[in-house]
Amino acid sequence: MSATVIDGKKIAQEIRNEAKAEAAALVEAGVQPCLVVVLVGADPASKAYVGSKVKACEETGIKSIKIEMPATASEQDLMTEIDRLNSDASVHGILVQLPLPMQMDEDRVTERIDPAKDVDGFHPENVGKLSIGIDCLTPCTPSGIPELITRSGIAMSGKHAVVIGRSNIVGKPMMNILVQKGEKANCTVTCCHSGTQDLKQFTQQADILIAAIGVPEFVTADMVKPGATVIDVGINRVDDTSAARGYRLVGDVDYASVAPVAGAITPVPGGVGPMTVAMLMKNTTKAARMIHGLASR
Amino acid sequence: MSATVIDGKKIAQEIRNEAKAEAAALVEAGVQPCLVVVLVGADPASKAYVGSKVKACEETGIKSIKIEMPATASEQDLMTEIDRLNSDASVHGILVQLPLPMQMDEDRVTERIDPAKDVDGFHPENVGKLSIGIDCLTPCTPSGIPELITRSGIAMSGKHAVVIGRSNIVGKPMMNILVQKGEKANCTVTCCHSGTQDLKQFTQQADILIAAIGVPEFVTADMVKPGATVIDVGINRVDDTSAARGYRLVGDVDYASVAPVAGAITPVPGGVGPMTVAMLMKNTTKAARMIHGLASR
Repeated sequence: MSATVIDGKKIAQEIRNEAKAEAAALVEAGVQPCLVVVLVGADPASKAYVGSKVKACEETGIKSIKIEMPATASEQDLMTEIDRLNSDASVHGILVQLPLPMQMDEDRVTERIDPAKDVDGFHPENVGKLSIGIDCLTPCTPSGIPELITRSGIAMSGKHAVVIGRSNIVGKPMMNILVQKGEKANCTVTCCHSGTQDLKQFTQQADILIAAIGVPEFVTADMVKPGATVIDVGINRVDDTSAARGYRLVGDVDYASVAPVAGAITPVPGGVGPMTVAMLMKNTTKAARMIHGLASR
Repeated sequence: MSATVIDGKKIAQEIRNEAKAEAAALVEAGVQPCLVVVLVGADPASKAYVGSKVKACEETGIKSIKIEMPATASEQDLMTEIDRLNSDASVHGILVQLPLPMQMDEDRVTERIDPAKDVDGFHPENVGKLSIGIDCLTPCTPSGIPELITRSGIAMSGKHAVVIGRSNIVGKPMMNILVQKGEKANCTVTCCHSGTQDLKQFTQQADILIAAIGVPEFVTADMVKPGATVIDVGINRVDDTSAARGYRLVGDVDYASVAPVAGAITPVPGGVGPMTVAMLMKNTTKAARMIHGLASR
């Protein structure tokens, strides 16, 4: 017996196709959805992420604008740019690529973005609405996970979901998503983290196990209940002299040992990763619809 | 063996004394802390709650203003009042007593209050900051619970806390408080609710069990791990012909059966109840400090 491999590439493509149809409907209604991505500095990983977002926009029919600022820019320079984008009616989504240089405060920058254009879902107002259960823009990575699960034919309601990790980008919003009512949630939710004692006793009880720790191959077979759905949010580089690049990408789950135990599992790469950009496209069309009163807010 | 009874009245008084000292320090600094409580309609329970809040303000050295509006007031009437209070620099806390009449949307009303004056901690921006871990005004009832536990000499960090209930007033913020880092949190958190299957298997694992369901005496001894700390958030009226009022107040926990099993337990009344008003006093002095730049925001 081996786990069903959850095909993140295929499901991400489905979602991108839906976003493409939504973008076309917006254009039909006279609205060209537009995402602005702000990149401060020249971190190679950040440049690559921004590049893939811009490319996804092109394929989806979303106008994209890339704004590059030098690593030496001041926080005020960035704030001025955000203010300009907030008041530009032709812009529906604003994404400031993280991390930011040391001289900038990420919380302050995030709070400056108009919540209605906050396609990353990181503004406190959106974080709060997500918890309360008010429709809003929600963080891309955790929002993609119920899509991965349910579109693979796995029911979520009533299941016990265990989240490992309490980051503001994945763990905490994941917990707040899973606890809501609705078919793509309604889970009993446990959140484990660095303060958890005897982690294994919790993970072994998970029907749905979501690993977002940032430690390579941390989750091993003995931590997983047979038949569980295992979602691996990690993307870690580990040295590998046999690889042309000198490293390979692995998740937070020890795939080789866990796959034979799990009922379903996401690979790395090709699992959670492709969903993040797909959900960003969805968020951008949603922001455009909300701003133009074409959807409930 | 019987549980330690957590003395909510005593701990609430400690906190009110601290708030009183904070209020005096503010007055010393030239700031008279001021809470405005808005009551729409004449619901007897709401009137009683408002009355106890006003009385607590008097005892704490906080100026209180009670605004009463008729049950027939429109949402716009209330919004106009909130706008006026938002822009009144002498007002530091605004509390609109819930529930509101049918013609008013509680989400919209809550969002209208300036987050800096939102002493109930229900505004999405504060709910979001609580989840992110940014210092803010937090909901009174769940915020009082770590105080009850730690001031009774019970450590929280590393414990498994199980919350029953996912309301926006208690269950969800409780989960978001408990999962944060820090000595009054850092728990492994499980949130159970109406969608949970086999509830008992979860509650039996709780080192700290928090019942916020609204069902009289729901939690019975068989659901509790021996030695657990049991926090009862419920206040339910049950018919009792032997009582002068014709009813008695009971919690969500079957106290008689659970007390012999638990390590510590809050009674009803006299447990969580008195803490809510005490934390409201703390929130009001905190709001005044933040608004006047006397505390970090």
